[in-house]
Amino acid sequence: MPLTKAELTRLRDLRDKKHREEAGLFVIEGAKVIGELLAAGFPLQEIYGTTEWAGRAASPLAAAARTESAPYPSITTLTPDEMARVSHFPTPSSVLAVGRIVRTPLPPGALKQGLTLALDGIQDPGNVGTLLRLADWFGLARVLLGPDCADLFSQKVINASMGSFARVTVHTAPLAEALAGCPVPILGCDLQGDDVHAIRPCQDAVIVIGSEGRGLSPAVQGHVTQRVTIPKYGGAESLNAAVAAAIVCDNLRRVTGAGGR
Amino acid sequence: MPLTKAELTRLRDLRDKKHREEAGLFVIEGAKVIGELLAAGFPLQEIYGTTEWAGRAASPLAAAARTESAPYPSITTLTPDEMARVSHFPTPSSVLAVGRIVRTPLPPGALKQGLTLALDGIQDPGNVGTLLRLADWFGLARVLLGPDCADLFSQKVINASMGSFARVTVHTAPLAEALAGCPVPILGCDLQGDDVHAIRPCQDAVIVIGSEGRGLSPAVQGHVTQRVTIPKYGGAESLNAAVAAAIVCDNLRRVTGAGGR
Repeated sequence: MPLTKAELTRLRDLRDKKHREEAGLFVIEGAKVIGELLAAGFPLQEIYGTTEWAGRAASPLAAAARTESAPYPSITTLTPDEMARVSHFPTPSSVLAVGRIVRTPLPPGALKQGLTLALDGIQDPGNVGTLLRLADWFGLARVLLGPDCADLFSQKVINASMGSFARVTVHTAPLAEALAGCPVPILGCDLQGDDVHAIRPCQDAVIVIGSEGRGLSPAVQGHVTQRVTIPKYGGAESLNAAVAAAIVCDNLRRVTGAGGR
Repeated sequence: MPLTKAELTRLRDLRDKKHREEAGLFVIEGAKVIGELLAAGFPLQEIYGTTEWAGRAASPLAAAARTESAPYPSITTLTPDEMARVSHFPTPSSVLAVGRIVRTPLPPGALKQGLTLALDGIQDPGNVGTLLRLADWFGLARVLLGPDCADLFSQKVINASMGSFARVTVHTAPLAEALAGCPVPILGCDLQGDDVHAIRPCQDAVIVIGSEGRGLSPAVQGHVTQRVTIPKYGGAESLNAAVAAAIVCDNLRRVTGAGGR
């Protein structure tokens, strides 16, 4: 049965943050990223695919249905014309899915244990996605997303995370409040800190990464217990935020010892 | 005097690689990136700005004119309507500039000295730009760009490099040929190599970074003398190419000693 005009409009409208927030739903599009979310057992609410995609997806969908996630939705098949109308891209994908927006507040005391990557004003969605991916690679306990970062549920963030969106624990919270009274080291990455190569081992810590343009916000800076800097040998004024975060994570993992593979 | 229709068309057409190559010219747009190129003394051939931009740019332009680069072109002022017609963006910038495409072949024996970052099939222009930026940060001697990478002279590469485009020495060459007979260590970043934390000091080396999807190409792999891997602690399948390159550079600079600031 073809989708009604209202159903098509609803799916299209989810590209806008305002509509996403009102509906409490986000939309994601593309066989690659949806395959990654399925593989990670991420609970999707609705799936719309072309007949061709549905055929190819039978096996990952069956695998997802065997995970402990919520019962898997059936696929609504769309004609190419319908897909063109709901797609958010100039070239429509073969599949589009809808998931529920769930923002998890930070439980009190959570920062005490494990490594946290806190993002302060990272507005580029590609950077936020890449940061989720490296938090996943380095096995960090959580990512703390300040309210002035790119929207976690935007297509670009989820795409750039390469599936890590479904694996990393992300909390959304005002950073300065979350860091107040935090008993573990809070490392802030900036241009005038201690050499990151001399970083002290710590199993529990917060690494704060600011925006490339403005650096750490003053309210967050007040909570930083150690500023760390990546030694520079050439002419660039700064490093990409994800690149800087990755180097700090690698140095921290290096000194805290084993467990990598 | 307003631009002729042919002049407007010529500037617009430079957005396409085909037209760029035919004309031997590239185009770059935006006050920020053009300010970075001016600050780095990069020789631009033509500059088209709004009256407002020309007023603001007087001082960086004067500074650029004092550098040793070629005599600076005068600014052609455009009306907002003309700018809207030549702009490559939905929201026209206040300035657009044209530079000459110069691809520098690799001089024989050049890889013997210093650190080289070789890019093998990095097709994402944002990644290539970020890689230029980190080559600049780490003071690498040169970047070697394989022919299957994003075009060095595309707007996205130059933007993402944050001015490093004008400071880093980039050579374009088929990688396998360039690496054949190279007498210094050739480190290839992949998922089954030696721990990057145990990397040996070397002042002269080539670091090869492959595409995230396909890794190093077989022809290049044959020349790699040591495969290095970044220890992984979590679930992500891979790291972003620029993130991986940055971690290798940081580890190499760490063991080869002083000079950072």
